[in-house]
Amino acid sequence: MIVDLRSDTVTKPTPAMREAMAAAEVGDDVYAEDPTVNALQAEVAALFGHEAALFAPTGSMANQIAIQLVVPRADELLCDADAHVVNYEVGAAAAIGGVSTRTWPARGADLDPDEIAAMIRPDGYHAVTTRAIAVEQTHNRAGGAVLPLATLERLRSVADDAGLALHCDGARIWHAHVADGVPLATYGRLFDTLSVCLSKGLGAPVGSLVVGSAEKIEKARWIRKRMGGGMRQVGVLAAAGQYALRHHIARLADDHARAARLASALAPFGVVDVEAVRTNLVPLDLTKSPVDALALGAAARDAGVLVSVMGPHSARLVTHLDVDDAGIDRAIEVLTRVLS
Amino acid sequence: MIVDLRSDTVTKPTPAMREAMAAAEVGDDVYAEDPTVNALQAEVAALFGHEAALFAPTGSMANQIAIQLVVPRADELLCDADAHVVNYEVGAAAAIGGVSTRTWPARGADLDPDEIAAMIRPDGYHAVTTRAIAVEQTHNRAGGAVLPLATLERLRSVADDAGLALHCDGARIWHAHVADGVPLATYGRLFDTLSVCLSKGLGAPVGSLVVGSAEKIEKARWIRKRMGGGMRQVGVLAAAGQYALRHHIARLADDHARAARLASALAPFGVVDVEAVRTNLVPLDLTKSPVDALALGAAARDAGVLVSVMGPHSARLVTHLDVDDAGIDRAIEVLTRVLS
Amino acid sequence: MIVDLRSDTVTKPTPAMREAMAAAEVGDDVYAEDPTVNALQAEVAALFGHEAALFAPTGSMANQIAIQLVVPRADELLCDADAHVVNYEVGAAAAIGGVSTRTWPARGADLDPDEIAAMIRPDGYHAVTTRAIAVEQTHNRAGGAVLPLATLERLRSVADDAGLALHCDGARIWHAHVADGVPLATYGRLFDTLSVCLSKGLGAPVGSLVVGSAEKIEKARWIRKRMGGGMRQVGVLAAAGQYALRHHIARLADDHARAARLASALAPFGVVDVEAVRTNLVPLDLTKSPVDALALGAAARDAGVLVSVMGPHSARLVTHLDVDDAGIDRAIEVLTRVLS
Amino acid sequence: MIVDLRSDTVTKPTPAMREAMAAAEVGDDVYAEDPTVNALQAEVAALFGHEAALFAPTGSMANQIAIQLVVPRADELLCDADAHVVNYEVGAAAAIGGVSTRTWPARGADLDPDEIAAMIRPDGYHAVTTRAIAVEQTHNRAGGAVLPLATLERLRSVADDAGLALHCDGARIWHAHVADGVPLATYGRLFDTLSVCLSKGLGAPVGSLVVGSAEKIEKARWIRKRMGGGMRQVGVLAAAGQYALRHHIARLADDHARAARLASALAPFGVVDVEAVRTNLVPLDLTKSPVDALALGAAARDAGVLVSVMGPHSARLVTHLDVDDAGIDRAIEVLTRVLS
Repeated sequence: MIVDLRSDTVTKPTPAMREAMAAAEVGDDVYAEDPTVNALQAEVAALFGHEAALFAPTGSMANQIAIQLVVPRADELLCDADAHVVNYEVGAAAAIGGVSTRTWPARGADLDPDEIAAMIRPDGYHAVTTRAIAVEQTHNRAGGAVLPLATLERLRSVADDAGLALHCDGARIWHAHVADGVPLATYGRLFDTLSVCLSKGLGAPVGSLVVGSAEKIEKARWIRKRMGGGMRQVGVLAAAGQYALRHHIARLADDHARAARLASALAPFGVVDVEAVRTNLVPLDLTKSPVDALALGAAARDAGVLVSVMGPHSARLVTHLDVDDAGIDRAIEVLTRVLS
Repeated sequence: MIVDLRSDTVTKPTPAMREAMAAAEVGDDVYAEDPTVNALQAEVAALFGHEAALFAPTGSMANQIAIQLVVPRADELLCDADAHVVNYEVGAAAAIGGVSTRTWPARGADLDPDEIAAMIRPDGYHAVTTRAIAVEQTHNRAGGAVLPLATLERLRSVADDAGLALHCDGARIWHAHVADGVPLATYGRLFDTLSVCLSKGLGAPVGSLVVGSAEKIEKARWIRKRMGGGMRQVGVLAAAGQYALRHHIARLADDHARAARLASALAPFGVVDVEAVRTNLVPLDLTKSPVDALALGAAARDAGVLVSVMGPHSARLVTHLDVDDAGIDRAIEVLTRVLS
Repeated sequence: MIVDLRSDTVTKPTPAMREAMAAAEVGDDVYAEDPTVNALQAEVAALFGHEAALFAPTGSMANQIAIQLVVPRADELLCDADAHVVNYEVGAAAAIGGVSTRTWPARGADLDPDEIAAMIRPDGYHAVTTRAIAVEQTHNRAGGAVLPLATLERLRSVADDAGLALHCDGARIWHAHVADGVPLATYGRLFDTLSVCLSKGLGAPVGSLVVGSAEKIEKARWIRKRMGGGMRQVGVLAAAGQYALRHHIARLADDHARAARLASALAPFGVVDVEAVRTNLVPLDLTKSPVDALALGAAARDAGVLVSVMGPHSARLVTHLDVDDAGIDRAIEVLTRVLS
Repeated sequence: MIVDLRSDTVTKPTPAMREAMAAAEVGDDVYAEDPTVNALQAEVAALFGHEAALFAPTGSMANQIAIQLVVPRADELLCDADAHVVNYEVGAAAAIGGVSTRTWPARGADLDPDEIAAMIRPDGYHAVTTRAIAVEQTHNRAGGAVLPLATLERLRSVADDAGLALHCDGARIWHAHVADGVPLATYGRLFDTLSVCLSKGLGAPVGSLVVGSAEKIEKARWIRKRMGGGMRQVGVLAAAGQYALRHHIARLADDHARAARLASALAPFGVVDVEAVRTNLVPLDLTKSPVDALALGAAARDAGVLVSVMGPHSARLVTHLDVDDAGIDRAIEVLTRVLS
């Protein structure tokens, strides 16, 4: 039995979710005629207090659609140097959207809105025109850090003062909601656009959504079609998403508790900052460990525990729907042995 | 009961296909770990005699991945002025691939390889460099026309002489195979890349594949991820595709026969070229009819028959898995009345 | 003494033009403070009856700025398959502007506005949106053919009916004006944007202009800067342009007469259509000649006459400011010998 | 008499430079036949110890050509958040080159190669691939700061270790050479590509060059033509550049001395860091001054002194060829009065 802690993307649909998929009513979503997709879109828009939402095959496409909505070609997006949108989407913002990016130094949850404000360039002929700011909630490379609501509210003021749009890469916004108890609609009203993901923590097999105004989402349909994301009878997947929204949000608290347990167990080896582990990601810093990341990954894999190697001396553990308490016990046992 | 003749994209998965989907083994396809996707890719590659294939969410993405594989940014693709790749993919070749297009005048099945040869520009500093030629089999805007094998073979020679790649938009190549009896592998060996679609005539809900060499498909994975098409537990959809390949190819002959019956029934009104109807598309030319396309579409819709309005005086009927003989009877009855 | 008939781009500034350059008052044109550039821009705008014009380093940049002005990224430009903008600008429309192109078959001066009208796609979610049509006056690959005014007026109607913009690649519009006697302002009012060139027939060393409305030209300054064309004390070059406009337009009649003389002299060899030579380009069709283009080019070069080799059996002769009657005599003598 | 301290781009060609321009031998540079351009390119390549160089109409085009040479579309360039290439080139890297950018926090001369090393992403399917690092010497937004040779050498090691290219935006590298006494060839050997400018401190009216290997510069000709920078008889401008290289490098020491004098004179007002002024740029920080930047700019302009307003509380003074000691006296008198 493998314990796969590489990512929460690896979860497989549960039998109940499979049943929902098998029973889904479908239609041609390019004609906006898939009833299940339409219902899911309405449900997600309502959750975040926005007018509309659009289903997309991946979180990357949802993010890139949103970026193209808020930043015209050749203008600028500001984001964290560790943001998913400039690190893990294969250069799409520049290569597809023609969007210029400048990045502030990665600080995880300690984002400083004033630092960002100082980076904004005025609209003008000589300088590139800054149009939008993107944040990531929770923050993947920052170990699932949760940006405090107060910080986001200050950032909204910064954006408003400069006339900028604010985008949230909310692939794991559900985890922030569960960890901090902030309602999704409270997050929703702070952002012009959000992307949210059904297939990471929520456990659906495929799918993300872009959330925003009706006007933006109408444009988003064109962009999605251009990027090759206009699927047909995709209600089969949307049904899994509906199921996930109803049954898999509250249970993320279990994943957080399991991540905390993992962190505590590995703390004696000096490889994890226990307090920083607030959601389902456990980053390991192996710089002071005798074991490097490749060695750790290989030894753990041999013992049936899969981890993500992120750099020569960094690795990552992720808890999710398909790892239960026994899996965590097993992972602790194996990793303790490897790190000793 | 609606008879939907707008497109073969509207088909819904059959109960048996749903069962296959419900039973599909899945994994994370971004890690290439979804066994059903891997099996489907291998199967399709083998059908066309190529080394590899890659699943994509749509035919547009499959085409655009292939175009980016065979034409470097700023170089040129030659294709038909009526080709799907420059008409119905929302400008993606230029906007995403940076690919320049020149087009030959649309001639449906009467493609002239010599005319195309004369358009090729030499590699050189002054002229744009021609890199590839794309054809469409069957040809959508040409009413499902089937390009003769001999024409394709001559075009292959033209491409070889000039060192160009040849791409086939094979969204409905299954129909050509059934209509002309040419083996899929015979088509396969003529092209450097093909895109083939599971969700049009074959009736799967979602999905296309890019087919080519192992080296090309390895690069295709990067391009797919950049375009936002790197989905996760997508074996659920791949299972539908596997089912479709096994059960829905030979039956296309029924769709062709139904299209021919429709064409014959409407021929007395002078709106259809019966001989040109060789597959599942029936284009209506209403220029000499007292009824224009919008009026036809509206009147037919009121009577429960949906058709595609393509222009002021052109419409299109498409037969597919979800239209049986009774549906055709009903469509003939309604359209005969409207055209009278 | 070399007789260089390769292109009219090879002309060198005359002593009088050099004097004008040496005396030019200059300023920083990025700040719009170069008085000579400003005066040239106003003069050219007035010539064509438009509000404004912008200096650019090359005809390619002027064309590409205009195309970006009239076609949003991912939308479509229709043009001739032999147009300079899709053949000789290194793929810039697609690679830089993200502009999709479909082309009508090259017919030189026999352009058919109805054929073009039939290519226009409606604004809509499924099809690429056609936004503009481009023509070339005179037409380079069509041997300097002059599009008749009546044709252009019909094309303007086609564009108006469909709500499209019309762009003129007017690199050699001066030659059309001289050949047909149509006032420049008459051409000007037919087009939303024009590019005109100072460094081909007019003999200035460097420079082209984009012509259009004040609003368009304001946007053009941004696009020019993005493309790297925002030069500084460029009045030195603008002065050459001013001189050329005043002294080198009427004299194009001499170039036309010399081209006609060349054509007549070579007609006995069956390599030139004398009637088609209306301006300063003399295309040679060597398909029926015993001499191919490379051989002709080499033999002529050895005798001090330079011609452009355009294909295996095609070559081109161009008359211009730096070729006088004696040069034409010499060219006739050499080419007659080579073709015999 | 106006004292223009806005930028060193405003300089006008001297009489001697005008003479050189008037006497320049020219040819068609698209055919690489302009002898003056060819000589200038060879001279600049030799100065930096590289194989080849290419003339471009602007520094922005030279930078963007170099970036496209070293970073394939969709891959990544790392640079300073205050770098000219991502701030003042109108988004060209992303919009034209499709190049993704991540930026390190601006630190002027105190660049930290280790911080940059930590930002590099490995070649791989999940993360964007880092391909090059760009630095700016001297650094414009950092007040003409000079990056120490030792820092650049360490950065070269970082690049080598990771297999990255290193680009230098050397628009004002001449000033670094004069300020620190580092030979141009020493700088040259540290970088894969450099852009250098003739029309800022050196006083030529127009022109920059890209410097690199023969192979890179061959490709650069294509990119230049695509961007619309392939000019014709441009030797007139190259002659100004040749003159500037021979007569205007050593004299930059005067500009530096004048900038230092300006800085010392304004130091009592607490608006300038005298020690940081090492070349010809004098940044004014007005945050603690009762006068804001707009007010300072307006009052100075009324008294005939032009300065650049960079932000609400920041302005910039630039010394150059067209400002002599009397001009500096006048500027000190006016600015002292305004700041009092």
